[in-house]
Amino acid sequence: MSKITTQQFNQIIEHELPWAADADMRLQSIESGKAVMILPYHQRSVRPGGSISGPHMMMLADACMYAVVLSMIGKVELAVTTSFNINFLRKPTESDLIAEGKIIKVGKRLAVMEVSIFSEEDIVAHATGTYSIPP
Amino acid sequence: MSKITTQQFNQIIEHELPWAADADMRLQSIESGKAVMILPYHQRSVRPGGSISGPHMMMLADACMYAVVLSMIGKVELAVTTSFNINFLRKPTESDLIAEGKIIKVGKRLAVMEVSIFSEEDIVAHATGTYSIPP
Amino acid sequence: MSKITTQQFNQIIEHELPWAADADMRLQSIESGKAVMILPYHQRSVRPGGSISGPHMMMLADACMYAVVLSMIGKVELAVTTSFNINFLRKPTESDLIAEGKIIKVGKRLAVMEVSIFSEEDIVAHATGTYSIPP
Amino acid sequence: MSKITTQQFNQIIEHELPWAADADMRLQSIESGKAVMILPYHQRSVRPGGSISGPHMMMLADACMYAVVLSMIGKVELAVTTSFNINFLRKPTESDLIAEGKIIKVGKRLAVMEVSIFSEEDIVAHATGTYSIPP
Repeated sequence: MSKITTQQFNQIIEHELPWAADADMRLQSIESGKAVMILPYHQRSVRPGGSISGPHMMMLADACMYAVVLSMIGKVELAVTTSFNINFLRKPTESDLIAEGKIIKVGKRLAVMEVSIFSEEDIVAHATGTYSIPP
Repeated sequence: MSKITTQQFNQIIEHELPWAADADMRLQSIESGKAVMILPYHQRSVRPGGSISGPHMMMLADACMYAVVLSMIGKVELAVTTSFNINFLRKPTESDLIAEGKIIKVGKRLAVMEVSIFSEEDIVAHATGTYSIPP
Repeated sequence: MSKITTQQFNQIIEHELPWAADADMRLQSIESGKAVMILPYHQRSVRPGGSISGPHMMMLADACMYAVVLSMIGKVELAVTTSFNINFLRKPTESDLIAEGKIIKVGKRLAVMEVSIFSEEDIVAHATGTYSIPP
Repeated sequence: MSKITTQQFNQIIEHELPWAADADMRLQSIESGKAVMILPYHQRSVRPGGSISGPHMMMLADACMYAVVLSMIGKVELAVTTSFNINFLRKPTESDLIAEGKIIKVGKRLAVMEVSIFSEEDIVAHATGTYSIPP
């Protein structure tokens, strides 16, 4: 079972991740080691060409990884990203993005996750990342 | 010599990268294959703990890579990131971040760059990325 | 259906990937977009401490990605790795390694894959990579 | 000043990195935070097409990072790679490869390095990696 609820994580977004709140990111569902997060389509998130920018997809992937970590270890706000890698696969359409994150391995000091980002059912980006867990 | 000026790139930020303009990112200097970009410290960019968030460092690194690409190929707005990798090295202080980008290799179809991000003279993150250049 | 058989890929290893043949790597099974490859435990592949070295896990992951690509596009030997990223998760035991690869996205010019490496049922490494497909 | 000599590192290769010794890798020079390593051209290291294989470039980059770490912390054999990322930039010619590694940041628990690989003066690959330092 997840050690944090959807509602608790959305409160973290609202109170402590102002940049994610500004972009209207929200956690849609969570279970132990799995999280689904949404980034609504907005004019302020686009790049030349009209689709959501690469950095917004990185933001979304990183926030989704944070939810996955907290689902495993509970509300530990000082868990921080130590490395992050992303491949952009296809230009998203002008629509909301859905990120599906899942744990690859969680240990005492590190957690490794992957996130797939979808735009209307097509995968548009795939990221992996490592979070450091404070003692 | 750079194929784009600092002023031209800052106009791209203002008119076409609303998320970078919102964060007050600005290009400080550019030459062929090299760019220096600044992200001012703001409350809206922070993460739990008070320092600038990982996603804002990713944004800054990606925008700096974009400037480096345009310094080599001129104003080609449809150049897009295809992959991006970052290591976070140290918690930044509550101060502006400086990104120094440089080209590793530019070819006909791909450009590869690296960016080092500094907070008060200490390196806090290091990123590499690939941009695809349209034909 | 895979565009290459296990036997055909093992012949490629034998005739054209001498370093993989030297390490006794072999493809165990293949289907469209999925491949399972084995690296037997050998004294010559170890690092200080006795477990299989990081570079051998990278070799195994890269060869497994190559099998996944060929399962999608057939025997195109000039498909080449353009980027590769790996996280090492846990020290393997002194036993054979199993790599399970799957496609994330295949397009006309690029294929992106991920590979999980297991040692006695525990995941020990996770890699993602991009192959360039010749026209 | 480097905490390990060229000769000491080449002895580590000979006695404890059999795969590197098999490929005739050798450290050419070392100073604190910098190392230059050579991989001679051999038929056994090639891929279809005749140039040195991607996995051999990964091996070379990883071994070079190991030398860089040991130049900073001395002979600590249980330092291990935790993540590794590489971009392949250009097909090498049929000649020896030279890897130039340098430290990005060394802390108590982690060291981050980058390595550029050259074939006859052209850069052919660029890698970054993280080593975990045992307590």
